[in-house]
Amino acid sequence: MTRVVATGTFDLLHPGHVLYLEKSRELGDELVVIVARDINVRHKPKPIVPESQRLKMVQSLKAVDRAVLGEEKDIFQLIERLQPDIITLGYDQHFDPAALEAELFSRGIHAQIVRVEANDPCTLCSSRQIVAKILERFRGRRV
Amino acid sequence: MTRVVATGTFDLLHPGHVLYLEKSRELGDELVVIVARDINVRHKPKPIVPESQRLKMVQSLKAVDRAVLGEEKDIFQLIERLQPDIITLGYDQHFDPAALEAELFSRGIHAQIVRVEANDPCTLCSSRQIVAKILERFRGRRV
Repeated sequence: MTRVVATGTFDLLHPGHVLYLEKSRELGDELVVIVARDINVRHKPKPIVPESQRLKMVQSLKAVDRAVLGEEKDIFQLIERLQPDIITLGYDQHFDPAALEAELFSRGIHAQIVRVEANDPCTLCSSRQIVAKILERFRGRRV
Repeated sequence: MTRVVATGTFDLLHPGHVLYLEKSRELGDELVVIVARDINVRHKPKPIVPESQRLKMVQSLKAVDRAVLGEEKDIFQLIERLQPDIITLGYDQHFDPAALEAELFSRGIHAQIVRVEANDPCTLCSSRQIVAKILERFRGRRV
């Protein structure tokens, strides 16, 4: 059985997320998704949707067998427990696959890192675009 | 086989939508979801997410067997073709079930109207709340 692990924030869920998860699922027999904790999202604006709700949404997707919240302190701890065969990166996740593989290897995690290049060209396929559209629509208006 | 039909806009998908669809699915053997066309959303603000993307998101949910866009002109035409056994209404869909059942009956649609009262008490379980949170967060700031 090939276990695939995908990770992300999954704020304001959109088809880009779904495509990443579907392509990840196709690489193995089981897809476990690690949803980033609110406290660990530091490289981009704080998520709009709280972690418990982001988890629920990811869990409700056909492509996902299981979704879990990440660890707050050591983000590799959960990966160690899950022992995935494959870890996927989305097209916009800015890790260096080789460096990540080496880091994991040093911790006894022998997972292959696969970048999912697929990218849905839909118009609102990033949380940032959704936020921008909402701001444009409602600027100066009461909701 | 009991066919259930659920309907809605499903803008900015949230756990409230998911709960409505899961409870709808539990009432039968197949759940078909009719996603409202952009042009037909008149009783509340125009959706943020375009119809093709709202359709995709609904289709990607575990609870949903099939999702289709509604008809632009006659919203009952599709229901006539689908011939559901049950049509569900969400807790916040303001139709009168008895009047709707009578209207459908007059068009040869013998579906039972069931209101799904379940309501997820999560903090961002309406598109309006999500929009309000984004406006509050980003007011006066560049995205």
